[in-house]
Amino acid sequence: MTMPLIELKVSSPSREALVDITERVQRAVVESDPTLSGMVNLFVPHTTAGVTINEGADPSVARDIVEGLTRFVPREAGYRHSEGNSDAHIKASLIGCHVAVPVELGRLRLGTWQSIYLAEFDGPRTRRVLIVPAPA
Amino acid sequence: MTMPLIELKVSSPSREALVDITERVQRAVVESDPTLSGMVNLFVPHTTAGVTINEGADPSVARDIVEGLTRFVPREAGYRHSEGNSDAHIKASLIGCHVAVPVELGRLRLGTWQSIYLAEFDGPRTRRVLIVPAPA
Amino acid sequence: MTMPLIELKVSSPSREALVDITERVQRAVVESDPTLSGMVNLFVPHTTAGVTINEGADPSVARDIVEGLTRFVPREAGYRHSEGNSDAHIKASLIGCHVAVPVELGRLRLGTWQSIYLAEFDGPRTRRVLIVPAPA
Repeated sequence: MTMPLIELKVSSPSREALVDITERVQRAVVESDPTLSGMVNLFVPHTTAGVTINEGADPSVARDIVEGLTRFVPREAGYRHSEGNSDAHIKASLIGCHVAVPVELGRLRLGTWQSIYLAEFDGPRTRRVLIVPAPA
Repeated sequence: MTMPLIELKVSSPSREALVDITERVQRAVVESDPTLSGMVNLFVPHTTAGVTINEGADPSVARDIVEGLTRFVPREAGYRHSEGNSDAHIKASLIGCHVAVPVELGRLRLGTWQSIYLAEFDGPRTRRVLIVPAPA
Repeated sequence: MTMPLIELKVSSPSREALVDITERVQRAVVESDPTLSGMVNLFVPHTTAGVTINEGADPSVARDIVEGLTRFVPREAGYRHSEGNSDAHIKASLIGCHVAVPVELGRLRLGTWQSIYLAEFDGPRTRRVLIVPAPA
């Protein structure tokens, strides 16, 4: 059986940023199966980026999240890893690389204020997001 | 196809609290499909609340988690978002709005000490939790 | 219906450690269903351990994550819980006890640098990891 795995390419604009991918995920779900009901899995196959869901209405929330994370996971703190991006690895594990969202008849069942974000912690880069529909 | 999506309403008692919803989730699963084996997805459609699984036996653990989060994500820290609840948005992304739990013949396969909590960071409010069974 | 739930036992070597379980998860998936395409769910039924995905190539990344978490969730901080392991409970909720990974024809679709880790915060102990395949 072929898995209906969809892959998005997402460009991040700076070292740290939340990139709103809600519309692209919604479009991919509808194109894959407009009658899908169940869950849609999102998986980021990277170790210095993740996926998170948070407010999309006021862009200052995304900036507060990025800056808030840096306040308690500082860029320099005597880390051992020689690439100098240990802060990004720690943030990726805190935010997580997987989430699943309910879908009903092809529409994401997000809350009113929720947007889906690729969370970049070591950009700018082109990242991948895997989308795996899971019918109920 | 109709998705067997169940919606719980959960009242939180204070600005920050972990509200134990284990029994309500268990009951919803059994009422929906008493023979369900697979996973049950829990999704919180809010941006200042989340869902987490942690110890349910000693209520001081839930208080330590809430207070521990506030220690490194302070309520005031020069945030930009004008609603004054950026700390709650940051905590929501750290805790996450989705989790899935194994289910066997209608029973949640939680560990001995695990309870499921609605994690409130900007209450008191009435919150929603979406429950989506996923048969194996 | 019997759920194809697989249980791994994982020994952790110290109080805090990331234990790489990638190969064991891959083997369990192949033995359970070598043609599986969809997602595989991993669930840790403990309250002072979790599961995370991060870099596996340089072991200093895992150490940086463990030490970075301890920097902002200190072991002693006036916690109430009498067992003296509240830091471990907080870290477990930050990292999470569930993740799902895409699988294609029996192979985990992890990114090039990704490994799956049992995240131990109150060891050394023997921990359990539940594996639940979810065909697409």
